[in-house]
Amino acid sequence: MATEAFSTVDIIRTKRDGGILSDEMIDWTIDAYTRGAIAEEQMSALNMAIFFQGMNRKEISRWTHAMINSGERMDFSGLKDTTGKILATTDKHSTGGVGDKITLPLAPLVASFGVAVPQLSGRGLGHTGGTLDKLEAIPGWRAALSNEEMFAQLAGAGAVICAAGTGLAPADKKLYALRDVTATVDSLPLIASSIMSKKIAEGTGTLILDVKVGSGAFMKDEAMARELAETMVYLGTDAGVNTVALLTNMDTPLGLTAGNAIEVDESVEVLAGGGPEDVIELTVALATEMLAGAGITDVDVRGALNNGQAMDRWRQMIIAQGGDPDVKLPVAKESHTVYAQAEGALLKLDAMDIGLAAWSLGAGRARKEDSVQAGAGVRLHVKPGALVRRGQPIATLLTDTPEKFPRAIELVEKAILIGSDTDRADTRLILGRIVAK
Amino acid sequence: MATEAFSTVDIIRTKRDGGILSDEMIDWTIDAYTRGAIAEEQMSALNMAIFFQGMNRKEISRWTHAMINSGERMDFSGLKDTTGKILATTDKHSTGGVGDKITLPLAPLVASFGVAVPQLSGRGLGHTGGTLDKLEAIPGWRAALSNEEMFAQLAGAGAVICAAGTGLAPADKKLYALRDVTATVDSLPLIASSIMSKKIAEGTGTLILDVKVGSGAFMKDEAMARELAETMVYLGTDAGVNTVALLTNMDTPLGLTAGNAIEVDESVEVLAGGGPEDVIELTVALATEMLAGAGITDVDVRGALNNGQAMDRWRQMIIAQGGDPDVKLPVAKESHTVYAQAEGALLKLDAMDIGLAAWSLGAGRARKEDSVQAGAGVRLHVKPGALVRRGQPIATLLTDTPEKFPRAIELVEKAILIGSDTDRADTRLILGRIVAK
Repeated sequence: MATEAFSTVDIIRTKRDGGILSDEMIDWTIDAYTRGAIAEEQMSALNMAIFFQGMNRKEISRWTHAMINSGERMDFSGLKDTTGKILATTDKHSTGGVGDKITLPLAPLVASFGVAVPQLSGRGLGHTGGTLDKLEAIPGWRAALSNEEMFAQLAGAGAVICAAGTGLAPADKKLYALRDVTATVDSLPLIASSIMSKKIAEGTGTLILDVKVGSGAFMKDEAMARELAETMVYLGTDAGVNTVALLTNMDTPLGLTAGNAIEVDESVEVLAGGGPEDVIELTVALATEMLAGAGITDVDVRGALNNGQAMDRWRQMIIAQGGDPDVKLPVAKESHTVYAQAEGALLKLDAMDIGLAAWSLGAGRARKEDSVQAGAGVRLHVKPGALVRRGQPIATLLTDTPEKFPRAIELVEKAILIGSDTDRADTRLILGRIVAK
Repeated sequence: MATEAFSTVDIIRTKRDGGILSDEMIDWTIDAYTRGAIAEEQMSALNMAIFFQGMNRKEISRWTHAMINSGERMDFSGLKDTTGKILATTDKHSTGGVGDKITLPLAPLVASFGVAVPQLSGRGLGHTGGTLDKLEAIPGWRAALSNEEMFAQLAGAGAVICAAGTGLAPADKKLYALRDVTATVDSLPLIASSIMSKKIAEGTGTLILDVKVGSGAFMKDEAMARELAETMVYLGTDAGVNTVALLTNMDTPLGLTAGNAIEVDESVEVLAGGGPEDVIELTVALATEMLAGAGITDVDVRGALNNGQAMDRWRQMIIAQGGDPDVKLPVAKESHTVYAQAEGALLKLDAMDIGLAAWSLGAGRARKEDSVQAGAGVRLHVKPGALVRRGQPIATLLTDTPEKFPRAIELVEKAILIGSDTDRADTRLILGRIVAK
């Protein structure tokens, strides 16, 4: 038996009893876990101890760096466009929400101002959709690119949305899978270090975080979401990444669609100068932050959605990854519409319930190995704040597998809250902005 | 995939968030863990959540019974002696301490009054020794008996100390091994349910618990030890076992020996009417409780140590299990004596340090698969409360492997505290008695 620098049981006990893990303990823990010298059941006990006892900033920072050091790091510092000009890089991360298709219009919008957007994304698990699942609704579109393909696309289209390579922060991948089955996902230090280890390893110059708060988000509570945002801004800044976070509302789905193909369609509407106002507002706000981080201010960001400049980049991106931007996307075979049961003000369309409905209709997956239905999801006809009359359509449910309707209808009916017409829904979208202190 | 009644993640989350586990959840959890449907890493997360959130009496009771139901139960209700008289059964459990050889004189002492003592014991792990390891210092003595052999010995000698069969509470065995590597051993509900599931499954009529408190015990704190004792008395009583607990001091090793062969020698001294007063006092107190539980009062318990009555039973027991009660026990090859560095009152001989010293000299094992040295250990020459002069021998360290001396000497020197001769050591042995409410 090789001699180890630390005893795993001592490390678990230290954290369990409220102690601080030293730099050396943290480095050893992540390394030993990655190479299998710490067993899954030991790491799971440590995670639960961290859930209860937390970690201080210094511990979270070291934990994050240890996970980065478990794998390779990307380097975009020499990235040039086709004319040879050095490109700044900027990236966005959302903590996940329902109807959150923002990456789709955002990446080409930012790229259209000459800043590179290497957007490494994931697939969905549970009630929040995955960016790659959405784009894969476009026939022929490929999520998996080699590093060479990614660099070539960044030099040309200026933006790429693709699957993160398996070489980035492998410790985080192993740890995330463990947290998922041991009820330790929603621990602030573990969330912050998981997100930031991947994003820092991706080598971006600027990172804008969209931290969701509300019923459809990991963080239901604004104070917790703010603390998570502050922690991640600290971690990014500490690692030399220009990091800003927006705190945004996730009590209501973003836009009027939650699914895959229907979210791509809505994104294209936004790129064509139309689409729902909340999607436009958040896209423009995040793009403005990403550009400012790369030194670009005083540009007409919203105008780039209206004048075709962002759409051109979108088309380039889709074509470069094997898709046809003009193809008609798959449509669900069956639909069912839910109508208002009362007259009044629509006060709530609960994001979690709508997300679970879309998921249960086939838009998301219950297990990693499941596939998703491109056409499935929920299309909303009104948003909170509107006045509705009895019998007015509120949402249409879409699926290829109609046996899934009963459960989804129940969820959508539960999502709807109609009040008297003098009640007002809270429709604020951007709740705060967090910068390094 | 078979349909399970519960989701493991939901159960972990329920306990993590401070909820109460229902009877059905607990039954399912123990059953699913035993058959492998709950993974080790999930059970470890649940254990850590229990460490932080605790369990109420009802949960602990159900958890204990679920572990009992995971295996077989013994039944001594028809036990008769060689004349055909029905024998009551009584059992003792100690939560573990340094120098705790009490089972050795206690079992034959109680049996000598006509009450059967089926004492199923374990091996040592860590700084507290194991009763079976001690008895195995007697050449030829066998710990493993068949059920038939055990019943025959109970009918004859009236007492048996042997290894617990693997069929009793298998869920506890699996769980204990997991807790050991995940720093979840010292959780009150898990300790109480682990001890009591085995003891209740063993089918005794009366159970006397020796709950240790102090530096050399699991429980360092008297209030925690009292709570553990109360919980176990509740569990035993609730299961129909006549249960009483004594709370006893473990700041100082029991007697003058901590090891294997040297503890057997000291036990034989006690059975011969001699030996250290604290060992005699605790043996008599526990025997009195065990006999009272079986309905026998007004007998001269201490006298049975002086008149050879208990010694006769001891000899029968050892012979029945293949040992020779007259054989000279193994002696360590090397010894090293530690002397007093000052003059005054010996205030402390820290049980944990002495236990760790004995363990590091080879008396205990670091891993289950290690073997122990029969002759290794620590022999004390004085006990706290005594006045010592500089240069007086305090302890002699014994081992076959002298390279282990430096670490053990360091521990023994650390264990010793000498004050001014007006200081008084606390030498109380029995701190409390807990009965069912």
